[in-house]
Amino acid sequence: MTKTKGPMSGFRDFLASELIPRQRMIETIKKVYESYGFLPLDTPAIERFETLTGKYGEEGEKLIYQFEDHGGRKVALRYDLTVPLARVVAQYKDELVLPYKRYQVGNVWRGESPQAGRYREFLQFDADIVGAKSSLADSEIVMMMADAMQALGVGALISVNDRRILDALSEKLGLDSDASRKLFLIIDKTSKLGKDKVLEEIKIEFGDKVSELVLQFLSISGSSEEKIDKIREVLGSSVALLEGISNLGEVFSILKKSGYGENLVVFDPTIARGLDYYTGIIYETYLLDLPEIGSVCSGGRFDKLISLLSDGKVDLPAVGTSVGVDRLFSALEKLGKVEKVRTNSKVLVVNFSGIDPSNYSLLVKKFRAAGIAAEVYYDSSKLDKQFKYADSLGIPWVVMFGEDEIKKGLIKVKDLETGDQKLVNLEDFISSFKK
Amino acid sequence: MTKTKGPMSGFRDFLASELIPRQRMIETIKKVYESYGFLPLDTPAIERFETLTGKYGEEGEKLIYQFEDHGGRKVALRYDLTVPLARVVAQYKDELVLPYKRYQVGNVWRGESPQAGRYREFLQFDADIVGAKSSLADSEIVMMMADAMQALGVGALISVNDRRILDALSEKLGLDSDASRKLFLIIDKTSKLGKDKVLEEIKIEFGDKVSELVLQFLSISGSSEEKIDKIREVLGSSVALLEGISNLGEVFSILKKSGYGENLVVFDPTIARGLDYYTGIIYETYLLDLPEIGSVCSGGRFDKLISLLSDGKVDLPAVGTSVGVDRLFSALEKLGKVEKVRTNSKVLVVNFSGIDPSNYSLLVKKFRAAGIAAEVYYDSSKLDKQFKYADSLGIPWVVMFGEDEIKKGLIKVKDLETGDQKLVNLEDFISSFKK
Repeated sequence: MTKTKGPMSGFRDFLASELIPRQRMIETIKKVYESYGFLPLDTPAIERFETLTGKYGEEGEKLIYQFEDHGGRKVALRYDLTVPLARVVAQYKDELVLPYKRYQVGNVWRGESPQAGRYREFLQFDADIVGAKSSLADSEIVMMMADAMQALGVGALISVNDRRILDALSEKLGLDSDASRKLFLIIDKTSKLGKDKVLEEIKIEFGDKVSELVLQFLSISGSSEEKIDKIREVLGSSVALLEGISNLGEVFSILKKSGYGENLVVFDPTIARGLDYYTGIIYETYLLDLPEIGSVCSGGRFDKLISLLSDGKVDLPAVGTSVGVDRLFSALEKLGKVEKVRTNSKVLVVNFSGIDPSNYSLLVKKFRAAGIAAEVYYDSSKLDKQFKYADSLGIPWVVMFGEDEIKKGLIKVKDLETGDQKLVNLEDFISSFKK
Repeated sequence: MTKTKGPMSGFRDFLASELIPRQRMIETIKKVYESYGFLPLDTPAIERFETLTGKYGEEGEKLIYQFEDHGGRKVALRYDLTVPLARVVAQYKDELVLPYKRYQVGNVWRGESPQAGRYREFLQFDADIVGAKSSLADSEIVMMMADAMQALGVGALISVNDRRILDALSEKLGLDSDASRKLFLIIDKTSKLGKDKVLEEIKIEFGDKVSELVLQFLSISGSSEEKIDKIREVLGSSVALLEGISNLGEVFSILKKSGYGENLVVFDPTIARGLDYYTGIIYETYLLDLPEIGSVCSGGRFDKLISLLSDGKVDLPAVGTSVGVDRLFSALEKLGKVEKVRTNSKVLVVNFSGIDPSNYSLLVKKFRAAGIAAEVYYDSSKLDKQFKYADSLGIPWVVMFGEDEIKKGLIKVKDLETGDQKLVNLEDFISSFKK
């Protein structure tokens, strides 16, 4: 047999054994987001090229899947979910109720080099609040992330910072934006490399004066609230810094009083987030038992981006978070938090030859009506083939209803895990099953 | 303000008020399919062009969205979910457990002329059994469709036929395949136009001899099982016909004994289904209160298609069904079966100025923990603005927790529908709410 070609490199098929737990993870997070009143949104995979162009920088632009459609129009596949959000907010501004809290789960496409092990089609999962500026809005996103991790059953620590603190640092150091970006990138590695290595690197790159101030900055200690207070002593009192500090102070006060203590959320002045467009609070989420994989859920406030992405059509503040679906799922797998399921089916009814198949249809119907997913084998094949089917899919129970059982009005049930087999009443089995 | 461009013609944004009920409809059907042991599948939006080409006929081929990717490869957007199924079955044939029962919900893209009111991106929702030939497999698809309609709360009648019956008819009339197709297309309109008009049209198109046999064919009456028996008297006894009749007899026997009587499923020798690739049973689903919109869920057996679509790599029989998501949803809307929901939120907590916002965070947290989706207004805006937010989204309850209520340890709850307002204990409200 010749090897059949699979999906193209960078693309994936999801068979049930991966898709069922992935869907469950996504549903779990969705449920948390919906409990906060977030609304679902769906937008087309294809957008006008003009909607996307100029939004992702030079490097990003190259990765856009673009082509001509049947009408000769230049179109492109969705590159992220933020540009469509900006388009939607601009387009439906008269009917959307503000603040607009939406989540969207959808594939995006990027012509990444597949050698890098990157996917060309991957799921993004964003939640954003558009049209609210308060520290309460900022806090809710953080609490929602913490709740999502809790719902998934993983320990996580959310690290929070504010872009205005980093900006004050670079201002105090007199660095231009390129130098600042370089500095933040190094500082961002503190949790990975440790303070000493980071300071050493900064000394080499920027000299003693810079590394001394950064040392002071990194040496701020205490609880999150104490650290936030001390930042001012190190960085001065620009209006933007004071705004940032005051907002962070409010956020940490709300978080603490709402039961999200230092074990769940900490202020960490070293986290920077790569993206330039954040204007206020920023945060990242690290799994306690797998911090090395990096943040699984990140975001921040981007008060100027909606205006930029909507080509100036609407100007609304926004704060949000994005789940790294692939990274989070593989982390959950590594942590043993993914239930290995290959099917939702609980029962296979064996098909005996010579028996009217409606006996089996009626039987599975009763299981299904009781909320128990059940299947009947379609052919009266050899018993071992039928058992193998159940076994391969991980269906836990095989039910036999042959001539003998039909006469007795009972079913024979085999537990494939233990091998135990017993003759029981259908109703009894169903009620024991539901317990 | 200039009008912002929306999605391109033929594409749609789905805001919450449409998306929430659409998702609920899809989830309801998914749950039924999963209760039958069907496994979810997801495949990439982009396939190699060579996988798709030659599969959809000349007209279909023109509608494929195709372009060159970043590596200069010819690629195409998914046109349906059947070709990807065939590719998956061929590719994973060593790991898939047969029969492979899968469902897939996913967008497909077709460069239809938007003037025709057709969508260029629309959701397909297929369920197929690959690798089973028995009448029990055929019956399960029919039962599953009936169960899905019941779960959606709509009355539906499934019309069942077998391609081999139509083939026997055209064989008896000595018609070639083009003429047969034309004839079936006319016969297919019987339920819409009535027997007389159809016979008249056939007389004009094919002459007296043909219309006489079709008259006999259409005059077969009685219960579904009686009709199936009588078909042979009219159409003879070719091997294929006898196979078809025998299979249909078994299907209707299983259906009847399993509680799917003539009120749910009937044999209707006039339904033809447009597609050439069906080889056995075919069926369509009409809504009792809206038959004029046509079939909302159709399918049949296609024993040769998987081989054809996988370029001969696997040869497996298959039977399946496809839900017309857009048509079904708009029918449910017309029938008043779609709950008008704009949000999942049940409670808005008002934000009073001068109150520590953590009071509100704690309050919404308690609602959420009790499984009640709740939000807090992010700014302490004027009360009428906050109430308007709840009202516009259709959030049923507004909770006030101001200075007075905090002192008393009670909440003031307003039912936005009745306007009733009362001071209550939080725990009492939550438990009354859950009832």
